[in-house]
Amino acid sequence: MQDSLTAKGRATRARIVEGAAGVLREQGPAVTTLDDIRARTGTSKSQLFHYFPQGKDQLLLAVAQFEADRVLEDQQPHLGRLDTWESWQEWRDAVVERYERQGDECPLGSLFLQVGRSGPGARAIVTELMRQWQEDLARGIRSLRENGLVSPSLDADREAAALLAGIQGGVTIMMSTGDSTHLKAALDTAVAHLRASPHGTAPV
Amino acid sequence: MQDSLTAKGRATRARIVEGAAGVLREQGPAVTTLDDIRARTGTSKSQLFHYFPQGKDQLLLAVAQFEADRVLEDQQPHLGRLDTWESWQEWRDAVVERYERQGDECPLGSLFLQVGRSGPGARAIVTELMRQWQEDLARGIRSLRENGLVSPSLDADREAAALLAGIQGGVTIMMSTGDSTHLKAALDTAVAHLRASPHGTAPV
Repeated sequence: MQDSLTAKGRATRARIVEGAAGVLREQGPAVTTLDDIRARTGTSKSQLFHYFPQGKDQLLLAVAQFEADRVLEDQQPHLGRLDTWESWQEWRDAVVERYERQGDECPLGSLFLQVGRSGPGARAIVTELMRQWQEDLARGIRSLRENGLVSPSLDADREAAALLAGIQGGVTIMMSTGDSTHLKAALDTAVAHLRASPHGTAPV
Repeated sequence: MQDSLTAKGRATRARIVEGAAGVLREQGPAVTTLDDIRARTGTSKSQLFHYFPQGKDQLLLAVAQFEADRVLEDQQPHLGRLDTWESWQEWRDAVVERYERQGDECPLGSLFLQVGRSGPGARAIVTELMRQWQEDLARGIRSLRENGLVSPSLDADREAAALLAGIQGGVTIMMSTGDSTHLKAALDTAVAHLRASPHGTAPV
């Protein structure tokens, strides 16, 4: 569908999705109607139907994709350049800050509650977000390895998978308890363990 | 309420909760009625009212407590004796086995979806489960420390919090993707990092 849009069409669709994301964050997906979204985005019924012919669930999935992209964007530029310990620390702070700000409202989680988290659309979005996030972390660990900052024998993919799990769990626990201790512990022990891994002298 | 019950009353209540847990696991909390639970447990309306005067939500919370207790029981006896690397490995296998068996059905999660995970009853159950679980892990790490198997400077509470976050996140990701890679990575890197922590010779 999206591929067949003109540049102007893509821009209009993106504007609707971004506006819808704002309304959905404020009101929650359960009570937000297409009329609320039309009012916020200044879109006619036929326009909304043109971009989202399958209706509300299709629009909610597009917003979920938008929110998933935002999860990674909010960690930039740090997540894309995890090649020094300073970058790791800045990234760690950005992650904690993002989720403490978010509190117990998870836009992606509440969208999935509405469209069904086990549906193929929702699963694809989560799977791709996790894949991309983990790949960024693994790339960071590999660049530490190339810079001689961690052990050359470290399994970057496994470390990245474990770190990603720790972040997800830390956020989940924080949403249940209101306390970011676990998120911070997951991030800080992961970085501490990486730093403690035996390594040679950095190449000059 | 429960404190005022006789031994026989407590046994009856426990029997109702266990039976209800079975029905709820099979059918899901959204469609299960009190009549389904009465039929399964052979309980009269007045009996059910006697033990759960506030109705279905009160019973669902009692079942949630039962399921939360089960999360820890399923990790025994290993979780209670994490003082050797062998025990850690057995515990790791028990956790992976439990959650792979459970698949994408989380009894506790679906109960909370029904009664509202942010209500005080649900929050108290999750908070206590996390507290107890983390305490068991921290005690294990402290006993490794006493046995000279890990660094004496290791912060047992922080390591335990991070490990718990990794397990929670690994299970969450598995429920979205059907893949236990992250859960295993969280467990295995945590144990590997503990084992790699610099330590002296074990005291004889």
